[in-house]
Amino acid sequence: MSKHGVLLVLSSPSGGGKTTLCNRLSEIFPNLRYSTSMTTRPPRPYEIDGEDYLFVSEEEFFRRQKNGEFIEWAKVHDNYYGTLYSHVNELLDAGYDVILDIDTQGAATIKGKVPQAVFVFILPPSLESLAERLYKRDENCGVDKQIILDRLSAAKTEISHLGLYNYVVVNDDVEVATETLKSILIAEKARTDHLDLDQIINSEKFDFLLEM
Amino acid sequence: MSKHGVLLVLSSPSGGGKTTLCNRLSEIFPNLRYSTSMTTRPPRPYEIDGEDYLFVSEEEFFRRQKNGEFIEWAKVHDNYYGTLYSHVNELLDAGYDVILDIDTQGAATIKGKVPQAVFVFILPPSLESLAERLYKRDENCGVDKQIILDRLSAAKTEISHLGLYNYVVVNDDVEVATETLKSILIAEKARTDHLDLDQIINSEKFDFLLEM
Repeated sequence: MSKHGVLLVLSSPSGGGKTTLCNRLSEIFPNLRYSTSMTTRPPRPYEIDGEDYLFVSEEEFFRRQKNGEFIEWAKVHDNYYGTLYSHVNELLDAGYDVILDIDTQGAATIKGKVPQAVFVFILPPSLESLAERLYKRDENCGVDKQIILDRLSAAKTEISHLGLYNYVVVNDDVEVATETLKSILIAEKARTDHLDLDQIINSEKFDFLLEM
Repeated sequence: MSKHGVLLVLSSPSGGGKTTLCNRLSEIFPNLRYSTSMTTRPPRPYEIDGEDYLFVSEEEFFRRQKNGEFIEWAKVHDNYYGTLYSHVNELLDAGYDVILDIDTQGAATIKGKVPQAVFVFILPPSLESLAERLYKRDENCGVDKQIILDRLSAAKTEISHLGLYNYVVVNDDVEVATETLKSILIAEKARTDHLDLDQIINSEKFDFLLEM
Protein backbone atom coordinates (compact mmCIF):
# COMPACT_ATOMS: atom_id res chain seq x y z
CA MET A 1 0.00 0.00 0.00
CA SER A 2 2.93 2.31 0.76
CA LYS A 3 4.71 3.86 -2.21
CA HIS A 4 8.17 3.34 -0.71
CA GLY A 5 10.18 3.80 2.48
CA VAL A 6 10.31 6.91 4.66
CA LEU A 7 13.34 9.23 4.55
CA LEU A 8 14.02 10.32 8.15
CA VAL A 9 16.35 13.32 8.48
CA LEU A 10 17.64 13.53 12.04
CA SER A 11 19.52 16.43 13.61
CA SER A 12 20.69 17.03 17.14
CA PRO A 13 23.29 19.14 18.90
CA SER A 14 26.52 17.27 19.71
CA GLY A 15 25.79 15.34 22.91
CA GLY A 16 22.03 15.36 22.30
CA GLY A 17 21.89 11.56 22.46
CA LYS A 18 21.12 10.99 18.77
CA THR A 19 23.39 7.94 18.37
CA THR A 20 21.77 6.04 21.24
CA LEU A 21 18.29 6.83 19.90
CA CYS A 22 19.23 5.76 16.35
CA ASN A 23 20.58 2.47 17.65
CA ARG A 24 17.38 1.85 19.61
CA LEU A 25 15.32 2.65 16.53
CA SER A 26 17.36 0.24 14.39
CA GLU A 27 16.65 -2.53 16.90
CA ILE A 28 12.90 -1.86 16.68
CA PHE A 29 12.77 -1.47 12.88
CA PRO A 30 14.99 -4.03 11.11
CA ASN A 31 13.86 -2.34 7.89
CA LEU A 32 15.73 0.86 8.76
CA ARG A 33 18.99 1.68 6.98
CA TYR A 34 21.60 4.38 7.44
CA SER A 35 22.53 6.28 4.34
CA THR A 36 26.21 5.67 3.48
CA SER A 37 28.06 8.93 2.76
CA MET A 38 30.59 9.41 0.00
CA THR A 39 33.88 10.93 1.15
CA THR A 40 37.31 12.00 -0.10
CA ARG A 41 38.82 11.15 3.29
CA PRO A 42 41.19 8.16 3.13
CA PRO A 43 39.78 5.03 4.79
CA ARG A 44 40.98 4.11 8.25
CA PRO A 45 42.36 0.56 8.60
CA TYR A 46 39.13 -0.89 10.06
CA GLU A 47 36.76 0.91 7.66
CA ILE A 48 35.06 -0.97 4.83
CA ASP A 49 34.40 0.74 1.50
CA GLY A 50 30.66 0.75 0.73
CA GLU A 51 29.75 0.08 4.35
CA ASP A 52 31.27 2.82 6.50
CA TYR A 53 31.69 5.22 3.60
CA LEU A 54 31.93 5.23 -0.17
CA PHE A 55 35.59 6.25 -0.55
CA VAL A 56 36.40 8.22 -3.71
CA SER A 57 39.08 10.56 -5.05
CA GLU A 58 38.58 14.33 -4.99
CA GLU A 59 38.38 14.20 -8.76
CA GLU A 60 35.44 11.80 -8.70
CA PHE A 61 33.75 13.73 -5.87
CA PHE A 62 33.94 17.03 -7.77
CA ARG A 63 32.67 15.37 -10.96
CA ARG A 64 29.60 14.04 -9.12
CA GLN A 65 29.13 17.38 -7.39
CA LYS A 66 29.09 19.13 -10.79
CA ASN A 67 26.56 16.56 -12.06
CA GLY A 68 24.26 17.44 -9.15
CA GLU A 69 24.43 13.89 -7.80
CA PHE A 70 24.47 14.94 -4.13
CA ILE A 71 21.40 15.80 -2.03
CA GLU A 72 23.85 17.67 0.19
CA TRP A 73 27.59 17.86 0.65
CA ALA A 74 29.97 19.55 3.11
CA LYS A 75 33.67 20.16 3.64
CA VAL A 76 34.96 19.15 7.07
CA HIS A 77 38.68 19.48 7.98
CA ASP A 78 39.86 19.49 4.33
CA ASN A 79 37.75 16.45 3.43
CA TYR A 80 34.51 16.35 1.47
CA TYR A 81 31.42 14.40 2.50
CA GLY A 82 28.25 14.00 0.45
CA THR A 83 24.94 12.10 0.30
CA LEU A 84 24.08 10.60 -3.10
CA TYR A 85 20.51 10.92 -4.41
CA SER A 86 20.91 7.58 -6.20
CA HIS A 87 22.01 5.76 -3.03
CA VAL A 88 19.11 7.08 -0.93
CA ASN A 89 16.54 6.51 -3.69
CA GLU A 90 17.67 2.92 -4.28
CA LEU A 91 17.12 2.13 -0.59
CA LEU A 92 13.72 3.91 -0.50
CA ASP A 93 12.55 2.22 -3.72
CA ALA A 94 13.53 -1.16 -2.26
CA GLY A 95 11.10 -0.38 0.59
CA TYR A 96 13.69 0.44 3.25
CA ASP A 97 13.26 3.40 5.59
CA VAL A 98 16.38 5.53 5.56
CA ILE A 99 17.97 7.61 8.34
CA LEU A 100 20.08 10.60 7.40
CA ASP A 101 22.04 11.86 10.40
CA ILE A 102 22.88 15.46 9.55
CA ASP A 103 23.38 18.98 10.95
CA THR A 104 20.81 21.79 10.58
CA GLN A 105 22.72 23.27 7.62
CA GLY A 106 22.53 19.95 5.72
CA ALA A 107 18.91 19.46 6.78
CA ALA A 108 17.99 22.88 5.34
CA THR A 109 19.55 21.89 1.99
CA ILE A 110 17.65 18.59 1.95
CA LYS A 111 14.38 20.33 2.90
CA GLY A 112 14.67 22.41 -0.28
CA LYS A 113 15.29 19.36 -2.46
CA VAL A 114 13.28 16.56 -0.80
CA PRO A 115 10.40 18.31 1.02
CA GLN A 116 8.55 14.99 1.52
CA ALA A 117 11.33 13.76 3.82
CA VAL A 118 10.52 13.67 7.55
CA PHE A 119 12.62 16.12 9.57
CA VAL A 120 13.17 15.36 13.26
CA PHE A 121 15.16 17.40 15.75
CA ILE A 122 16.39 15.70 18.94
CA LEU A 123 16.32 18.34 21.64
CA PRO A 124 18.24 18.03 24.91
CA PRO A 125 15.98 18.95 27.85
CA SER A 126 18.16 22.01 28.57
CA LEU A 127 21.58 23.48 27.78
CA GLU A 128 22.59 22.67 31.34
CA SER A 129 21.84 18.98 30.76
CA LEU A 130 23.69 19.12 27.43
CA ALA A 131 26.71 20.68 29.16
CA GLU A 132 26.60 17.88 31.76
CA ARG A 133 26.56 15.21 29.05
CA LEU A 134 29.44 16.83 27.17
CA TYR A 135 31.46 17.06 30.40
CA LYS A 136 30.79 13.42 31.25
CA ARG A 137 31.69 12.26 27.75
CA ASP A 138 35.00 14.13 27.79
CA GLU A 139 35.87 13.27 31.37
CA ASN A 140 38.22 10.46 30.42
CA CYS A 141 39.99 12.44 27.73
CA GLY A 142 40.45 15.59 29.80
CA VAL A 143 37.78 18.28 29.54
CA ASP A 144 38.49 21.24 27.27
CA LYS A 145 36.19 23.98 28.56
CA GLN A 146 36.43 26.05 25.37
CA ILE A 147 35.37 23.15 23.13
CA ILE A 148 32.35 22.53 25.32
CA LEU A 149 31.44 26.22 25.30
CA ASP A 150 31.74 26.22 21.49
CA ARG A 151 29.48 23.17 21.26
CA LEU A 152 26.90 24.77 23.53
CA SER A 153 26.99 27.92 21.45
CA ALA A 154 26.53 25.81 18.27
CA ALA A 155 23.64 23.97 19.96
CA LYS A 156 21.96 27.29 20.75
CA THR A 157 22.22 28.28 17.06
CA GLU A 158 20.90 24.89 15.90
CA ILE A 159 17.94 25.08 18.26
CA SER A 160 16.97 28.42 16.72
CA HIS A 161 16.32 26.52 13.45
CA LEU A 162 13.63 24.25 14.97
CA GLY A 163 11.01 25.65 12.59
CA LEU A 164 12.61 23.75 9.71
CA TYR A 165 11.72 20.41 11.30
CA ASN A 166 8.42 18.48 11.28
CA TYR A 167 8.97 17.03 14.74
CA VAL A 168 10.81 17.87 17.96
CA VAL A 169 11.71 14.99 20.28
CA VAL A 170 12.86 16.05 23.74
CA ASN A 171 15.50 13.56 24.88
CA ASP A 172 14.91 13.80 28.62
CA ASP A 173 14.09 10.13 29.24
CA VAL A 174 15.61 7.82 26.61
CA GLU A 175 12.66 5.38 26.84
CA VAL A 176 10.11 8.12 26.20
CA ALA A 177 12.22 9.64 23.41
CA THR A 178 12.59 6.20 21.75
CA GLU A 179 8.81 5.66 21.97
CA THR A 180 8.20 9.06 20.36
CA LEU A 181 10.67 8.40 17.52
CA LYS A 182 9.12 4.97 16.97
CA SER A 183 5.64 6.55 16.90
CA ILE A 184 6.77 9.15 14.36
CA LEU A 185 7.96 6.43 11.98
CA ILE A 186 4.79 4.33 12.40
CA ALA A 187 2.55 7.40 12.00
CA GLU A 188 4.41 8.66 8.93
CA LYS A 189 3.84 5.31 7.21
CA ALA A 190 0.08 5.77 7.77
CA ARG A 191 0.03 9.35 6.40
CA THR A 192 -2.09 9.69 3.28
CA ASP A 193 0.61 11.74 1.53
CA HIS A 194 2.89 8.72 1.89
CA LEU A 195 0.31 6.22 0.62
CA ASP A 196 -0.90 5.51 -2.88
CA LEU A 197 -4.57 6.44 -2.33
CA ASP A 198 -5.64 5.73 -5.91
CA GLN A 199 -4.29 2.25 -5.51
CA ILE A 200 -6.29 1.77 -2.29
CA ILE A 201 -9.51 3.26 -3.65
CA ASN A 202 -9.34 1.33 -6.91
CA SER A 203 -8.07 -1.86 -5.31
CA GLU A 204 -10.14 -4.91 -6.13
CA LYS A 205 -10.53 -5.33 -2.37
CA PHE A 206 -13.00 -2.43 -2.56
CA ASP A 207 -14.52 -3.38 -5.87
CA PHE A 208 -18.24 -3.69 -6.24
CA LEU A 209 -20.52 -5.53 -6.60
CA LEU A 210 -19.89 -8.38 -4.25
CA GLU A 211 -21.62 -11.61 -5.03
CA MET A 212 -24.04 -11.92 -2.18
CA MET B 1 5.57 22.89 25.69
CA SER B 2 2.42 21.94 23.78
CA LYS B 3 -0.02 24.73 22.99
CA HIS B 4 -3.06 22.61 23.80
CA GLY B 5 -4.61 19.21 23.12
CA VAL B 6 -4.96 17.48 19.76
CA LEU B 7 -8.33 17.36 17.98
CA LEU B 8 -8.64 13.89 16.43
CA VAL B 9 -11.37 13.55 13.79
CA LEU B 10 -12.13 9.87 13.19
CA SER B 11 -14.23 8.42 10.39
CA SER B 12 -14.93 4.86 9.41
CA PRO B 13 -17.56 2.96 7.46
CA SER B 14 -20.24 1.35 9.62
CA GLY B 15 -18.71 -1.92 10.87
CA GLY B 16 -15.16 -0.66 10.39
CA GLY B 17 -14.34 -1.28 14.05
CA LYS B 18 -14.04 2.38 15.10
CA THR B 19 -15.79 1.94 18.46
CA THR B 20 -13.43 -0.83 19.62
CA LEU B 21 -10.39 1.21 18.55
CA CYS B 22 -11.66 4.36 20.30
CA ASN B 23 -12.20 2.41 23.51
CA ARG B 24 -8.67 0.97 23.31
CA LEU B 25 -7.28 4.46 22.73
CA SER B 26 -9.17 5.85 25.73
CA GLU B 27 -7.62 3.14 27.91
CA ILE B 28 -4.11 4.11 26.74
CA PHE B 29 -4.63 7.89 26.96
CA PRO B 30 -6.60 8.88 30.08
CA ASN B 31 -6.28 12.45 28.78
CA LEU B 32 -8.53 11.70 25.81
CA ARG B 33 -12.12 12.98 25.78
CA TYR B 34 -15.06 12.41 23.47
CA SER B 35 -16.78 15.53 22.28
CA THR B 36 -20.38 15.62 23.57
CA SER B 37 -22.85 16.43 20.80
CA MET B 38 -25.83 18.75 21.15
CA THR B 39 -29.12 17.25 19.99
CA THR B 40 -32.82 18.00 19.68
CA ARG B 41 -33.62 14.29 20.17
CA PRO B 42 -35.45 13.62 23.47
CA PRO B 43 -33.25 11.84 26.03
CA ARG B 44 -33.71 8.11 26.55
CA PRO B 45 -34.36 7.06 30.16
CA TYR B 46 -30.75 6.00 30.84
CA GLU B 47 -29.15 9.01 29.13
CA ILE B 48 -27.59 11.83 31.16
CA ASP B 49 -27.76 15.43 29.94
CA GLY B 50 -24.27 16.85 29.51
CA GLU B 51 -22.71 13.39 29.43
CA ASP B 52 -24.32 11.40 26.63
CA TYR B 53 -25.61 14.49 24.83
CA LEU B 54 -26.42 18.10 25.47
CA PHE B 55 -30.21 17.96 25.08
CA VAL B 56 -31.84 21.16 23.81
CA SER B 57 -35.07 22.31 22.14
CA GLU B 58 -35.23 22.85 18.37
CA GLU B 59 -35.59 26.57 19.09
CA GLU B 60 -32.30 26.68 20.97
CA PHE B 61 -30.54 24.49 18.39
CA PHE B 62 -31.59 26.77 15.51
CA ARG B 63 -30.57 29.88 17.45
CA ARG B 64 -27.06 28.45 17.99
CA GLN B 65 -26.93 27.30 14.38
CA LYS B 66 -27.72 30.86 13.25
CA ASN B 67 -25.01 32.21 15.57
CA GLY B 68 -22.47 29.90 13.90
CA GLU B 69 -21.82 28.06 17.16
CA PHE B 70 -21.48 24.61 15.52
CA ILE B 71 -18.33 23.23 13.89
CA GLU B 72 -20.69 20.89 12.08
CA TRP B 73 -24.30 19.79 12.37
CA ALA B 74 -26.53 17.21 10.67
CA LYS B 75 -30.14 16.12 10.55
CA VAL B 76 -30.69 12.39 11.16
CA HIS B 77 -34.21 10.90 11.24
CA ASP B 78 -35.93 14.24 12.01
CA ASN B 79 -33.50 15.08 14.82
CA TYR B 80 -30.63 17.55 14.74
CA TYR B 81 -27.13 16.84 16.01
CA GLY B 82 -24.30 19.34 16.27
CA THR B 83 -20.78 19.83 17.65
CA LEU B 84 -20.19 23.09 19.53
CA TYR B 85 -16.98 25.04 18.91
CA SER B 86 -17.04 26.26 22.51
CA HIS B 87 -17.29 22.74 23.93
CA VAL B 88 -14.39 21.39 21.86
CA ASN B 89 -12.22 24.46 22.48
CA GLU B 90 -12.77 24.33 26.24
CA LEU B 91 -11.53 20.73 26.31
CA LEU B 92 -8.52 21.49 24.05
CA ASP B 93 -7.57 24.61 26.06
CA ALA B 94 -7.72 22.55 29.25
CA GLY B 95 -5.05 20.31 27.66
CA TYR B 96 -7.32 17.37 26.81
CA ASP B 97 -7.07 15.57 23.49
CA VAL B 98 -10.49 15.33 21.87
CA ILE B 99 -11.97 12.62 19.63
CA LEU B 100 -14.69 13.58 17.18
CA ASP B 101 -16.37 10.48 15.76
CA ILE B 102 -17.94 11.66 12.51
CA ASP B 103 -18.83 10.68 8.92
CA THR B 104 -16.89 11.89 5.86
CA GLN B 105 -19.46 14.64 5.19
CA GLY B 106 -18.98 16.06 8.71
CA ALA B 107 -15.20 15.60 8.47
CA ALA B 108 -15.13 17.64 5.24
CA THR B 109 -16.98 20.50 6.98
CA ILE B 110 -14.56 20.42 9.93
CA LYS B 111 -11.55 20.32 7.57
CA GLY B 112 -12.68 23.65 6.13
CA LYS B 113 -13.08 25.24 9.56
CA VAL B 114 -10.38 23.59 11.70
CA PRO B 115 -7.60 22.57 9.26
CA GLN B 116 -5.14 21.96 12.13
CA ALA B 117 -7.29 19.05 13.37
CA VAL B 118 -5.91 15.55 12.73
CA PHE B 119 -8.08 13.54 10.32
CA VAL B 120 -7.92 9.75 10.54
CA PHE B 121 -9.83 7.24 8.44
CA ILE B 122 -10.24 3.69 9.76
CA LEU B 123 -10.23 1.42 6.73
CA PRO B 124 -11.54 -2.16 6.79
CA PRO B 125 -9.04 -4.50 5.09
CA SER B 126 -11.59 -5.17 2.30
CA LEU B 127 -15.28 -4.79 1.53
CA GLU B 128 -15.57 -8.57 1.89
CA SER B 129 -14.31 -8.36 5.47
CA LEU B 130 -16.63 -5.43 6.15
CA ALA B 131 -19.58 -7.45 4.80
CA GLU B 132 -18.57 -10.31 7.09
CA ARG B 133 -18.49 -8.04 10.13
CA LEU B 134 -21.86 -6.50 9.30
CA TYR B 135 -23.37 -9.98 8.84
CA LYS B 136 -21.95 -11.18 12.15
CA ARG B 137 -23.15 -8.09 14.00
CA ASP B 138 -26.68 -8.45 12.69
CA GLU B 139 -26.83 -12.22 13.08
CA ASN B 140 -28.75 -12.08 16.34
CA CYS B 141 -31.25 -9.50 15.09
CA GLY B 142 -31.93 -11.18 11.75
CA VAL B 143 -29.86 -10.08 8.77
CA ASP B 144 -31.41 -7.58 6.35
CA LYS B 145 -29.46 -8.08 3.12
CA GLN B 146 -30.56 -4.75 1.65
CA ILE B 147 -29.36 -2.74 4.68
CA ILE B 148 -25.96 -4.44 4.49
CA LEU B 149 -25.74 -3.77 0.74
CA ASP B 150 -26.61 -0.10 1.41
CA ARG B 151 -23.92 0.11 4.07
CA LEU B 152 -21.33 -1.43 1.75
CA SER B 153 -22.29 1.02 -0.97
CA ALA B 154 -21.97 3.91 1.54
CA ALA B 155 -18.58 2.52 2.63
CA LYS B 156 -17.40 2.51 -0.99
CA THR B 157 -18.40 6.20 -1.31
CA GLU B 158 -16.71 7.11 1.98
CA ILE B 159 -13.50 5.35 0.97
CA SER B 160 -13.38 7.49 -2.19
CA HIS B 161 -12.92 10.53 0.11
CA LEU B 162 -9.68 9.20 1.66
CA GLY B 163 -7.72 12.18 0.30
CA LEU B 164 -9.40 14.44 2.86
CA TYR B 165 -7.70 12.61 5.71
CA ASN B 166 -4.16 12.95 7.11
CA TYR B 167 -3.92 9.27 8.03
CA VAL B 168 -5.35 5.93 6.98
CA VAL B 169 -5.36 3.11 9.54
CA VAL B 170 -6.14 -0.32 8.11
CA ASN B 171 -8.10 -2.25 10.74
CA ASP B 172 -6.99 -5.74 9.81
CA ASP B 173 -5.46 -6.69 13.17
CA VAL B 174 -6.95 -4.73 16.08
CA GLU B 175 -3.61 -4.76 17.99
CA VAL B 176 -1.71 -3.31 15.03
CA ALA B 177 -4.44 -0.75 14.31
CA THR B 178 -4.45 0.34 17.99
CA GLU B 179 -0.66 0.71 17.92
CA THR B 180 -0.90 2.84 14.76
CA LEU B 181 -3.61 5.09 16.24
CA LYS B 182 -1.59 5.44 19.45
CA SER B 183 1.50 6.33 17.39
CA ILE B 184 -0.44 8.96 15.44
CA LEU B 185 -1.48 10.71 18.66
CA ILE B 186 2.05 10.57 20.17
CA ALA B 187 3.62 11.77 16.90
CA GLU B 188 1.12 14.62 16.45
CA LYS B 189 2.03 15.93 19.90
CA ALA B 190 5.67 16.10 18.79
CA ARG B 191 4.88 17.94 15.53
CA THR B 192 6.41 21.41 15.40
CA ASP B 193 3.15 22.92 14.11
CA HIS B 194 1.53 21.74 17.33
CA LEU B 195 4.29 23.10 19.58
CA ASP B 196 5.07 26.64 20.67
CA LEU B 197 8.55 26.87 19.10
CA ASP B 198 9.19 30.45 20.21
CA GLN B 199 8.56 29.35 23.75
CA ILE B 200 11.08 26.50 23.38
CA ILE B 201 13.75 28.59 21.66
CA ASN B 202 13.42 31.49 24.09
CA SER B 203 13.01 29.27 27.14
CA GLU B 204 15.46 30.03 29.90
CA LYS B 205 16.46 26.38 29.65
CA PHE B 206 18.33 27.37 26.48
CA ASP B 207 19.51 30.75 27.74
CA PHE B 208 23.10 31.71 27.52
CA LEU B 209 25.62 32.23 29.04
CA LEU B 210 25.89 29.41 31.51
CA GLU B 211 28.03 30.05 34.52
CA MET B 212 30.84 27.62 33.97
